[in-house]
Amino acid sequence: MTRTVYLNGEYLPETEAKVSIFDRAFLMADGVYEVVSVLGGKLLDFDGHLVRLKRSLDALAMQNPLSDADYLEAHRALVEKNAITDGLIYLQVSRGNPGDRDFAFPSDDTQPTVVMFTQSKPGLADSPAAKAGIRVISVPDQRWHRRDIKTVQLLYPSLAKMEAKKAGVDDAWLVEEGKVTEGTSNNAYIIKGGKIITRELSHDILHGITRAAVLRFAREAQMAVEERSFTIEEAQGADEAFVTSASAFVTPVIEIDGKAIGTGKPGALALRLREIYLEESLKNAR
Amino acid sequence: MTRTVYLNGEYLPETEAKVSIFDRAFLMADGVYEVVSVLGGKLLDFDGHLVRLKRSLDALAMQNPLSDADYLEAHRALVEKNAITDGLIYLQVSRGNPGDRDFAFPSDDTQPTVVMFTQSKPGLADSPAAKAGIRVISVPDQRWHRRDIKTVQLLYPSLAKMEAKKAGVDDAWLVEEGKVTEGTSNNAYIIKGGKIITRELSHDILHGITRAAVLRFAREAQMAVEERSFTIEEAQGADEAFVTSASAFVTPVIEIDGKAIGTGKPGALALRLREIYLEESLKNAR
Repeated sequence: MTRTVYLNGEYLPETEAKVSIFDRAFLMADGVYEVVSVLGGKLLDFDGHLVRLKRSLDALAMQNPLSDADYLEAHRALVEKNAITDGLIYLQVSRGNPGDRDFAFPSDDTQPTVVMFTQSKPGLADSPAAKAGIRVISVPDQRWHRRDIKTVQLLYPSLAKMEAKKAGVDDAWLVEEGKVTEGTSNNAYIIKGGKIITRELSHDILHGITRAAVLRFAREAQMAVEERSFTIEEAQGADEAFVTSASAFVTPVIEIDGKAIGTGKPGALALRLREIYLEESLKNAR
Repeated sequence: MTRTVYLNGEYLPETEAKVSIFDRAFLMADGVYEVVSVLGGKLLDFDGHLVRLKRSLDALAMQNPLSDADYLEAHRALVEKNAITDGLIYLQVSRGNPGDRDFAFPSDDTQPTVVMFTQSKPGLADSPAAKAGIRVISVPDQRWHRRDIKTVQLLYPSLAKMEAKKAGVDDAWLVEEGKVTEGTSNNAYIIKGGKIITRELSHDILHGITRAAVLRFAREAQMAVEERSFTIEEAQGADEAFVTSASAFVTPVIEIDGKAIGTGKPGALALRLREIYLEESLKNAR
């Protein structure tokens, strides 16, 4: 089935959705994005993703071209037009097409480019990765230094993912100055003695929407949470490890750099957090 | 006049040159580029730029879609079709359009996207900036760590350029661990006691084609060259400073963070290097 995608106010067959070669996302990676999960046709954490989108746009002095209501309407229209039960909606805003290439920002009347498209993922909440857990390797974190801004500068995460693939594992954890920053497209956690440990918020990591929700639910469930960085060695000695993202929810990590974590099976607390996250998020899904 | 641009083997009016929203340069900054100068209708350092293009493609395991002869033919065709006397030709190769978004590389049969377009810059070799010199500020280098690969991840250089503009100057020099790496889109140099000092090649800086040529010509002219990093303080105490790039050639820097360099006027050696570079490069222009 040909997807219907959204481009600058129009709903188009995916093969017809094209942008100028002068679009600043194409020439200069001058764009930001969000990914929202769809479960049972409903949008998870939608408001949180919009808040972060605006934070990213503000950080780059980029205009926000649509109202919250417009974003919601377009998301819902795409879910309907593409008959999405479970899946993802990708949203990207770039600084638009100034008609030429220049390092300097274009004039304010340059319209941002807005793209949205769906990815159908039937059974997203019951993915095999969640049941089996994933294996990761560590690689140096070579990304730019404002990872809190969710830009399309994803070449390094893509390279790291390929390195993981080559090593026969599922993903990579990025390490900077001896400490884990995060996964290639998710936040990283360990659990030791019942305590959840994850790196504190800063410019060094993405401020995960799923991270915020999971930590809130964990605290509500009286679990101890410590926000600080940790080494690969500490992670290898942990009882459990997991990652969170809008599309992976909470996914157990069972091996880091060839070393089994805990029993080498998905940890009980991680699986419990996944259950709580899905349950609570679905209550407020839109 | 509407430019004629090159897109995947076709010559199109610039307004019709569009790429899929799924192109990996648009969604993930998964693309590399080169900029070649045109003077008097001839291409400067063309072979050097092709060599570097191939190095960038190799570093990212990206296919090289065209032969050297094809690139040259397209460059010449664009010069002719757009009646370019002086200006630039921009060339970009991305990993193409796999038809969807995924961090993992697409299959090998995904065709790379090749874009080329011209920018007319009459009198490029006699720019006012070269005569007056430029003023720069220093800003932290927050880019990713493989600046030797010429990718389209240019958001930070763009932000730094905007910061320079806001400060009322022309450009920014990027500083990492106390040392200058390079300018936003050029290599950085100082001259002290007749010696040209510029950062040594590594993953930290672009391996400038103009840099290589200028250093070669400098050595041939018996000028002393030292390849090592330097601080902003050392630069401020230098006799001269300058930048090199394919479009700026050799351009004197007359002020760094508000401090005049040498006499506060373009330095004699920098201007001499500019003359030599233009003279020698034009001899081998294609």
